[in-house]
Amino acid sequence: MFPVQAGNIRRVSFATQLFPRINSSLNLETSPNLRADADHKADIDGSGGPFCGGRSRNKDLLTLFGFISDSQRGASTYAQLPLFRRSIRKLTQLVERELESVGAHEVLLPTLIPQKLWQQSKRLDRQQDALEHVYSFKDNANNELLLGPTFEESITQLMGDLDPPREQELPLLLYQTSSKFRYEPNPRFGLIRSNEFLMNDLYSFDISLDAAKRTYDLMTGVYERIFGLLDLPCLRFESDPGSIGGKYSHEYQLPVSSGEDHVIQCQSCSYSFNAEMCKQVGEDFADSSKCIKCSSQNIRRTQTLELAHTFLLSDTYSNPLKAHIKRDDGTKVNYQMGCFGLGLTRILGAGLDLYSLVPGGGVENEPANVNFIQMRWPSQVEPYKLGIVSPARRSKQFNAGSTIFIEGLTRKILESTRDVDVLIEDRDKDGIFKRLAKLQSLGIPNIIVVGQRFLHDTPEVEILSLSSSKKEYDQHWMTEDQAVDFVQRLENDK
Amino acid sequence: MFPVQAGNIRRVSFATQLFPRINSSLNLETSPNLRADADHKADIDGSGGPFCGGRSRNKDLLTLFGFISDSQRGASTYAQLPLFRRSIRKLTQLVERELESVGAHEVLLPTLIPQKLWQQSKRLDRQQDALEHVYSFKDNANNELLLGPTFEESITQLMGDLDPPREQELPLLLYQTSSKFRYEPNPRFGLIRSNEFLMNDLYSFDISLDAAKRTYDLMTGVYERIFGLLDLPCLRFESDPGSIGGKYSHEYQLPVSSGEDHVIQCQSCSYSFNAEMCKQVGEDFADSSKCIKCSSQNIRRTQTLELAHTFLLSDTYSNPLKAHIKRDDGTKVNYQMGCFGLGLTRILGAGLDLYSLVPGGGVENEPANVNFIQMRWPSQVEPYKLGIVSPARRSKQFNAGSTIFIEGLTRKILESTRDVDVLIEDRDKDGIFKRLAKLQSLGIPNIIVVGQRFLHDTPEVEILSLSSSKKEYDQHWMTEDQAVDFVQRLENDK
Repeated sequence: MFPVQAGNIRRVSFATQLFPRINSSLNLETSPNLRADADHKADIDGSGGPFCGGRSRNKDLLTLFGFISDSQRGASTYAQLPLFRRSIRKLTQLVERELESVGAHEVLLPTLIPQKLWQQSKRLDRQQDALEHVYSFKDNANNELLLGPTFEESITQLMGDLDPPREQELPLLLYQTSSKFRYEPNPRFGLIRSNEFLMNDLYSFDISLDAAKRTYDLMTGVYERIFGLLDLPCLRFESDPGSIGGKYSHEYQLPVSSGEDHVIQCQSCSYSFNAEMCKQVGEDFADSSKCIKCSSQNIRRTQTLELAHTFLLSDTYSNPLKAHIKRDDGTKVNYQMGCFGLGLTRILGAGLDLYSLVPGGGVENEPANVNFIQMRWPSQVEPYKLGIVSPARRSKQFNAGSTIFIEGLTRKILESTRDVDVLIEDRDKDGIFKRLAKLQSLGIPNIIVVGQRFLHDTPEVEILSLSSSKKEYDQHWMTEDQAVDFVQRLENDK
Repeated sequence: MFPVQAGNIRRVSFATQLFPRINSSLNLETSPNLRADADHKADIDGSGGPFCGGRSRNKDLLTLFGFISDSQRGASTYAQLPLFRRSIRKLTQLVERELESVGAHEVLLPTLIPQKLWQQSKRLDRQQDALEHVYSFKDNANNELLLGPTFEESITQLMGDLDPPREQELPLLLYQTSSKFRYEPNPRFGLIRSNEFLMNDLYSFDISLDAAKRTYDLMTGVYERIFGLLDLPCLRFESDPGSIGGKYSHEYQLPVSSGEDHVIQCQSCSYSFNAEMCKQVGEDFADSSKCIKCSSQNIRRTQTLELAHTFLLSDTYSNPLKAHIKRDDGTKVNYQMGCFGLGLTRILGAGLDLYSLVPGGGVENEPANVNFIQMRWPSQVEPYKLGIVSPARRSKQFNAGSTIFIEGLTRKILESTRDVDVLIEDRDKDGIFKRLAKLQSLGIPNIIVVGQRFLHDTPEVEILSLSSSKKEYDQHWMTEDQAVDFVQRLENDK
């Protein structure tokens, strides 16, 4: 008997698609929450602020299609449902694979941090309101604790407790992927700004500032590669290290109209700059009317969303927390550190905001030419790589043996690939067109439809594959063997 | 150039083995912390209580060998270092693979839980001191929150918000693997009882109590298979559902002298029973002098440690939280639920306590015949499956090309296996015997030594593989091809 659930294959079932009760009669064409106003400025989730065009759709999309639930009213957090977990896992694996490729190692630091550690590091001196957005409390024995939003102190204290490596073993790169906590009096934008979120944070340790700068450049390359793999065209800006501290820092900003930040992009020389960069050349960002590089007045202000932030910390933490390493001549020096953070839940939310298609609502200033809502994911992190649309029960194809054909095809695909996961859409009540629309709505990038030509002497299936713009699906007819080849190539291209 | 770090291969380096500063001159033979007294009752970690023989060695072992760090003094939590993360990941994957094989799906519920949800569920009524061991606090907007130690309310509220599945899609099994929090005024036993720990918890949803019982039996089989794969001989006992509530519950207890619980094992009929089972037949556990099944007086009291707990919840949570499903006749009924929890960090700690070997200290009542401390892991979750010991620099084997040989052998192994990970021990300062002892100390179950016979006309390597008792290594000499075959078989046996 063909396994209903085994490893990389799932049939569409309730458990992979947990629909919110309110959308039980899901109508992809007319869901009012997701229709933006004609001027694209509708405050669709009631969260629009002065810097928000009101087009952050990720929460509504993810809720509508059963990826997350905000059932836990009162804590401003989201439950991640099975389909969402698939995308988050793929994103986490992609990020960790890239980090390990440059020699990083995984750790897991405690979420509970003694508040006095933040006093020792002088963070609470440097920034009076450092705890304003932090959950802090006393346990029953009156110990002051906080829920870690960031872990510079924790990792530095750890390194101070461990035998230092030899110089040739540096840089030491330690990362973790874990839930982080930040108290938001006014949580909004769905996954973009919630009280509990998944973050990948990496900390680097070197023996000199020059070496730490080289490590910083190495990690900059890794982050650029990660955003490249995801097809998220982030801009990198110098920024104020702020309360984290250190020598300098950079932020990775995705131009998307749901963004909270503003940057200026020069239409003449393509240079992009932010408020911090304006300040450094004595310009005022709010009033700036020309490019700070080429002086062209052909500039455009763009809303952007921060997806990552990197800091050259120097010894901001290793000095007060006494984390030392020995030079060859025996002298002790402070570790020279860097820290690097990627917001994982935020990356998925921002990617959905950037690429998803809504009828009439448009997508990033271009009206979307779609008849129904279609999620679009950053590349490589779709919940399934491949969908298969089964024909309706009692259709001609069904009577001609489509079920056995699909099982055989799926088996061949799973045997000849390693990471391709398959979602078979065969829910009883729907016909072939509605089933196809469902998979397109989920943003599945490759879909095999067992349609009319399955009845030909040499049966063929239709393959829909998402174009690189993520707007339309390209269509091809293929024999079974060609379809298997096509899927194998998907994996090799990855 | 051969990659130093790539996927499944790691050279022994500082980053995989972060040693605590205090043990910088690590002496495997004489580390005083780990030598138990002659009567095996030494309170080696200062944590011995009335139910503790004082032999919980996991914290000392894990700290000594750089798996965890308690650098964060004051919060009674541990940082997990790279070697430990490898074991935890393997354990998590093993557990999740077994859960998915019966159709379970992953979710991730928020750690922050509004306290009022625990009022709605009547948990706070059922148990006056329900919050005694829970971190609870108010956020800056005066919302009462708690850090989830368990998630019956959260998952039930979620299901109440979602469209129910059709009856034929049941049982619905939802699991998560995440950090849980429990306030312990007196944390002890290392990983066994700490304030923050990794747990895998699964919740089941059915339409009738009979169906929920069948699901409970299904999950019982899954748990027994998991403990079988790990070679942890757990006993299963009926227990008091306590504050979780429900119809009945069972706990999985590992007989280990560091355990906090006591059971009686009949030496005549092999029946095991606990205090709860004594109570049910009107016996007093503390005074019991005979088997409650066969009445034999040949009984033995054993200390045990709880590694898992399962509950048939019935509608204890779905009734107050209004989580309903419809029968075919249209009537609404409460979900019939079960919940199932595995303590992941605790499983590793208990396995280490059970199997690790300490000179003179003995292991579970038998003196260990070892000259140096050797960690032993539950099966399948060792930090590396295979170690390779390189001969010392400037040895005869080294001069005969051992480095190139090892690189070629490693490449063949990685190309012909999928999940085997390799740790190459080639630290400059050590000779071949000390290198071998290091890998044995880490509990690496298979070790290839490039020793004397590497110089033969047909070079051979020595293979040490851990016996099923986990006490000694069996030794064999093999050619390169035989060694590759041997490693391939390891993977197939898994």
